[in-house]
Formats: sequence, structure tokens, C-alpha cells
Amino acid sequence: MRYRAVVAYDGTAYQGWQAQPSGSTIQQTLEAALTTVLREPVRVAAAGRTDAGVHARGQVIAFDATVDLPAERAAEDPHPSSPLERVLRSVNAVLPDDVVLRTLERAAADFDPRRDAVQRAYLYRIWNDPVRSPFERRTAWHVREPLDVAAMDEAARMLVGEHDFASFQGADDVPRPSVRTVARSEVRATGGVVAYDVEANSFARHMVRNVVGQLVEIGRGRARPDAMARLLVVRDRRLAPPPAPPQGLSLEWVRYP
Amino acid sequence: MRYRAVVAYDGTAYQGWQAQPSGSTIQQTLEAALTTVLREPVRVAAAGRTDAGVHARGQVIAFDATVDLPAERAAEDPHPSSPLERVLRSVNAVLPDDVVLRTLERAAADFDPRRDAVQRAYLYRIWNDPVRSPFERRTAWHVREPLDVAAMDEAARMLVGEHDFASFQGADDVPRPSVRTVARSEVRATGGVVAYDVEANSFARHMVRNVVGQLVEIGRGRARPDAMARLLVVRDRRLAPPPAPPQGLSLEWVRYP
Repeated sequence: MRYRAVVAYDGTAYQGWQAQPSGSTIQQTLEAALTTVLREPVRVAAAGRTDAGVHARGQVIAFDATVDLPAERAAEDPHPSSPLERVLRSVNAVLPDDVVLRTLERAAADFDPRRDAVQRAYLYRIWNDPVRSPFERRTAWHVREPLDVAAMDEAARMLVGEHDFASFQGADDVPRPSVRTVARSEVRATGGVVAYDVEANSFARHMVRNVVGQLVEIGRGRARPDAMARLLVVRDRRLAPPPAPPQGLSLEWVRYP
Repeated sequence: MRYRAVVAYDGTAYQGWQAQPSGSTIQQTLEAALTTVLREPVRVAAAGRTDAGVHARGQVIAFDATVDLPAERAAEDPHPSSPLERVLRSVNAVLPDDVVLRTLERAAADFDPRRDAVQRAYLYRIWNDPVRSPFERRTAWHVREPLDVAAMDEAARMLVGEHDFASFQGADDVPRPSVRTVARSEVRATGGVVAYDVEANSFARHMVRNVVGQLVEIGRGRARPDAMARLLVVRDRRLAPPPAPPQGLSLEWVRYP
């Protein structure tokens, strides 16, 4: 039987999603908890392979298990009544406190959380204050200089539509397709936090962090908003600034047909 | 010369404010950083001695040092220009990332951050969701059952005014004065968080956590809102529920004449 779950995690203590020979990863942590509860070896696949230090509020995973749990959806409940709810509750009791299953449900036998996804959303948070924040250090990039949020938002909105994101793709990559369709790309300020919301059909490697690197150059006044449009045209990673650090990034949700 | 600073900290990793023979404390951490930067032994006093695991966004401290820095106020600035600003910046560079000086200024020679305070504000946060949150685990109490926020707010408002808080004072205490004047006491829901804001001239030991313990009993429907008023009258700690855990609590600000 195939199952699907929505997972949230604070990625601070992890070497990213993917299982590695050294260091702990989200994938290994989930597989260990599911293997313990289901009493059989479990391998999980994810919608997005988040990097070291990156978080998720709505990562989607899938796994196979021989146990046949009824096909309804389980959210964690204080008084679990169904077998799926009891499994969800047990897995969350075994997981460390920085990883949690939000929901668990049956999936089609061929469900692939990465290939089947039609839309994904990321959030990038910047703590924009002269003084660093003890409460934002794990979940935001600290930028001391006051940012021009209106200029950043103007630049961010230039990314909406179908574009070639070659200038924003991870520099150490072999050449890969870099055309993506962005549905939403906006910057807003709330309290001391400048937040970047972006939704697309899929994302090139390091794309959000590379875009945020450029947005902050614009917010600092070192580049004009239309530098963003020019980077889309030139399709050259070497002309864009370094990526924003990982701790500001979170995979917010993944949508399926 | 005497100095005064506003301090923020994530208390998760500390044994509370006060210097202790074993385990690290906020006081020891600040004293070590100030001693390093000012090159003389520095002892600090605080407005409120927060317990292990309790946070602060606006703790106020005072200390003496022989260095004579000009008497203006320094907030951290990306381009520090005054001697006070440079000291602030240096101390923050030495402090660990879960403790920070927000401001630094000269104080009167007899300034006592505890005795001179005329008003203090605490915030207590509850993550009220069936599923625990990886992002709220350090800064909120996780309560799974849906809370009746209106009933909690009704009970909280009964505390406004001058009352004897003997029922809400730390149980292991020798008898101490327990009459306090509460200026604000309100419960509100924002997203998945239920927040309790309380302001008073001063607080009895463990008072906020003991009040929140009772508020959550009311929010769960195990007691009616007027149980709060009755507890004020009976003045007996044994009739109140256990205190709420420390990680939801934060000292928000301290006001001086």
C-alpha cells in the first residue's frame, strides 16, 4: 500500500533532506521513525529535496508499507480513533521535536510526490533590523541595512510568468532545463521581517535563494529593480550575486492535481 | 560610571537568569561578554530574574564600569559612530547568538533595574493545535485540545486591578507580599497561537505561569471563568492548578519613571 504525508520540520540541525553517509538528514529521520512504528523497512520520497538548514511547513512525502490501513485521511487528533490516526500519533511520538507529520493518508499506488506536483510555494524570511534577533536566528537571514521593500517587490513581480531562470540556477550544476512558470512572486514587510513569497510549477536548484540574493542587492540600493529583468534575459549565473543563506527558506506547500 | 541596557534572549539553553555554580545562565553570559569587551570585571543586575527556559525581548540590566562613555543612547547601527555604539556592537559580536543587547545608554549612578521599575509586561504563548509545531517548540506551550479563547479572556480580565495573588505565587516560597496591581490582562488568538498579555507594577514569583495554568483549565472547559475570581479570594496556592511550562513565557518590557 502507498501512503502520503505532509511533513513540517525545522531544518537547523539537519544536513538537508537527502540521506547521506555522514550527518543526520530529514529523510533518514523519517525513515527511522516509520520503520520503528510500522515494523518493516520504510523508504520515503519527497516533493522537494531541501538543502541543509532549509525548513518546511508543507513538505509532501510518500512511502510504501505492507500494512493495509483504511483509505481515509488522518489529521492528528487528541483522541485518535482510526488506525491511520493511531499510526500518525505513534510516528510523531517517535520523531524528534523538530520534525512532525501533519497529516497521513492513503495514496494511489503510483503516486510520486516530486513528479506529480503541479505547484509549489516557498517563503523566504529576512530579519531586517540593526540588531540580530535571538528568536529569528534559525528562521531568517539577518540584514542590518534598511531594505527598500517597494523596490524589492517591484523586482520580484518581474519574475511572474514563464521565464528562463538560468541566471538563478545553482552554479555547480550540469546544464539542466531552467525554464519555469512563476505564478506569484511578492515581497512584503511585516514587523521587522521582510518576507518573499514565491509560487511556481517547479523550481531550479537554489533558485529561490539566488533570487533573494538579487532582491537584497536591490533592497540595499546596490542595484535597480530592472536588474532583475536583465538577469532573466542574460541567462548567466556569474552575473547574479551569491545566494541568500539557507535558514531563511521554507517549503510552504505542494499542490497536486 | 553606571550603564543600562535592554537585552533580548532565547532562554532555551540556559538555567535562567541568575548566576549558578553549574550550568550556564544569562547573567554569566552577559558578564563574560561585558568583561571581555570592557577589559574589567563586570557584574550585572536585572529587572526580572527569569526562570530556566524563559525568554526576554525587553529585559533591562545595569552595570558599573570605569570607562567613561558619553551619555547618549546607542542603538546598534551598521556604521557605529559613537563610543557607546562601538561598545554595543563589540558586546553583541562576543555574545552567543541567543543573547543580544538591543540598546545601551548611561544611567544614573544609583539606577536599580529591579527596584526602580514601575511597570513590567509579560507575554505567554500557547501553540493550540492537534499537531505539535517544530517552529513553536521553543517559544510556546503545546496544548492539543481546542481552547475556548473567549472564556479565557473573560477570566483573564478579572485580574485587572489591585488583588492579592497568593493563590498564584510560587508554592515553595516563604510567605512574601503577594498584592499586585494589574493594568492589563488579556487573551487573544492569532493563527494557531493563543497569547496572554499581562502588565503589572510587579509580579509574584511564578505568577504568570500559575495564572496561565488556570487559564488553560478554563480554556479546556474544566473550570468556569469565575474560578479565576474565586482563586483571588481564597488566596491558597493549593487550590490552583500546576504552573504552565516555562518556554511559553517572555519578559516583553520594563518601564521606568
